[in-house]
Amino acid sequence: MQMEMSAKCLLTIVAEHVLKERLIEEIQNAGARGFTLTEVSGEGSRHRRVSEIMGENIKIETIVTPEVAQSLLTTLTRDYFPHYAAIAYTSTVNVLRGQKYE
Amino acid sequence: MQMEMSAKCLLTIVAEHVLKERLIEEIQNAGARGFTLTEVSGEGSRHRRVSEIMGENIKIETIVTPEVAQSLLTTLTRDYFPHYAAIAYTSTVNVLRGQKYE
Amino acid sequence: MQMEMSAKCLLTIVAEHVLKERLIEEIQNAGARGFTLTEVSGEGSRHRRVSEIMGENIKIETIVTPEVAQSLLTTLTRDYFPHYAAIAYTSTVNVLRGQKYE
Repeated sequence: MQMEMSAKCLLTIVAEHVLKERLIEEIQNAGARGFTLTEVSGEGSRHRRVSEIMGENIKIETIVTPEVAQSLLTTLTRDYFPHYAAIAYTSTVNVLRGQKYE
Repeated sequence: MQMEMSAKCLLTIVAEHVLKERLIEEIQNAGARGFTLTEVSGEGSRHRRVSEIMGENIKIETIVTPEVAQSLLTTLTRDYFPHYAAIAYTSTVNVLRGQKYE
Repeated sequence: MQMEMSAKCLLTIVAEHVLKERLIEEIQNAGARGFTLTEVSGEGSRHRRVSEIMGENIKIETIVTPEVAQSLLTTLTRDYFPHYAAIAYTSTVNVLRGQKYE
């Protein structure tokens, strides 16, 4: 059996829960083939009080090509980061069945 | 004090919740020393409707040797990916107390 | 528009839920600018029974400079790992708006 592993970009976005639907739409419009959403809490660099309520924030992870990552990061920089508490970061992962994300 | 950091493989599996017990058993049988399980939601490349229910899917993360990762990826490719919506990817992490995972 | 991406250290700590407040305080004292907390479950290398209860453990992720990561890893090694079930690992990520974490 041949396993197909391919290097892809894992883009992680952590943002306010209110942005959930909009961010999912951005991800889909950018051409991502899927995403994973986790309800999280946390404190950002604005030093707000830490919420005790799980689900205050969302973490969205999506495995994409570098081009889709670039498109999404541009959108985040232009339309979201000036107005909302959010962070985004990328790393390289080796994906089994990577062709699904191309 | 000496800190022991060692490079290990972080294997992440995202799959349908119904696979939880079977995947945990696979991970343990492959020789992994532990895992972290998160209840998540999301949409895969089959473009199913996004569930609003947290916990529809599970994300399992396990820190393993390359050999254990390879064994698990082979199992996933052979026994799970043909039948279930699932993704798997690996990355390299530097683990404190890495000797626990050898 | 110019996007500012910078390489940072993503430090992940998985520990017993009872350590939540103490670990958050350690992270803040070390100079981290924020963190994300996820309620998880799992089994560690002590081979305890897998809890069915989500939130048994916590996963804390914080994006920091190498110096802050080093400081936190030293604290974990000295004050927590001898007494508690916990793991910690680091990886490199490219952060949008990285200057917030410096």
